[in-house]
Amino acid sequence: MQALKDRILKEGKNLGDGILKVDGFINHQVDPQLMDQCGQELARRFRHVGATKVLTAEISGIAPALTTALHLGLPVVYARKSKPITMPDQVFLTLTPSHTKGRTVELIVSPEYLAGGERILIIDDFLASGATILGLVRLAQTAGAVIVAIGAVIEKKFEGGRGALAALGVPIESLAVITAMEGDQIVFEDD
Amino acid sequence: MQALKDRILKEGKNLGDGILKVDGFINHQVDPQLMDQCGQELARRFRHVGATKVLTAEISGIAPALTTALHLGLPVVYARKSKPITMPDQVFLTLTPSHTKGRTVELIVSPEYLAGGERILIIDDFLASGATILGLVRLAQTAGAVIVAIGAVIEKKFEGGRGALAALGVPIESLAVITAMEGDQIVFEDD
Repeated sequence: MQALKDRILKEGKNLGDGILKVDGFINHQVDPQLMDQCGQELARRFRHVGATKVLTAEISGIAPALTTALHLGLPVVYARKSKPITMPDQVFLTLTPSHTKGRTVELIVSPEYLAGGERILIIDDFLASGATILGLVRLAQTAGAVIVAIGAVIEKKFEGGRGALAALGVPIESLAVITAMEGDQIVFEDD
Repeated sequence: MQALKDRILKEGKNLGDGILKVDGFINHQVDPQLMDQCGQELARRFRHVGATKVLTAEISGIAPALTTALHLGLPVVYARKSKPITMPDQVFLTLTPSHTKGRTVELIVSPEYLAGGERILIIDDFLASGATILGLVRLAQTAGAVIVAIGAVIEKKFEGGRGALAALGVPIESLAVITAMEGDQIVFEDD
């Protein structure tokens, strides 16, 4: 998606160690127009998969998952990283390493909102190592739901997440695929 | 907003101790269409205040703040509750008690995205005691920004947040104002 790539080139910062800072339009400050365009494009690419629900992880996945779900007319569930008091005692919980937090985090979904037979479209801000998305896959599968597709706003292809998810055999789409980051240079895969 | 009130009556649950569970359409599973309607209505009510930015707190504030900002054509910043590695060392930070978490939480905003002279519209999912919103007010004021209005999806009027914010002298709007919750009964203020 050209508008997204342009924005990454203009405002994205390679902080080293594989970390791409996009806090000015995705991860802390959000550009709602751009997120809406991303959601529209992800919805277009996944309209055929027959999803019944969008699943993401708090926090940064919420904006693109919400706009994608809006354009698909589906509900969206965001996995929590800590259990709020409104959640029942019995939950689906998995552990996943967080690169940007430098520790293991919990992903928790209430069985009230993830049921057997649902067809799940996973949306996240980044596809990097795939660890967070694999955590969401485990939650959905534990619930008896089926993963039908996976979408990300930005993919860091050099971290291998696409390979880690390949065994699922579902469509994987990212709106900006980065093949290398060296110094100030961010290189995208050819469309 | 009638569609919101109807949904609260249909799916909201009074868990006691002033806690209203709306995890089925706002706080865990999100209804994007309803959130978009809420954002549209908040945008309509605040179009005249001349805001330059929407400010909210992660996590549950993100959805309504995003849709409000989308309809106003403004960027949105969500205060983080833990400092990600992409954030500079020097930040705006304040502490605020969280009723639903039962402890004090940090609210953190990077100075990169909150500057002196900005006109801030604060949007959150709930206006209850006003503690979280007052935390956002302190962050904005520390940055030299001006608060121009405050909006919430649901207000629990009996918790007194509106009074706590009155000294700011800015418009405060909530889309569903609850005056009492007793057992299964949720009572709204007359429009």
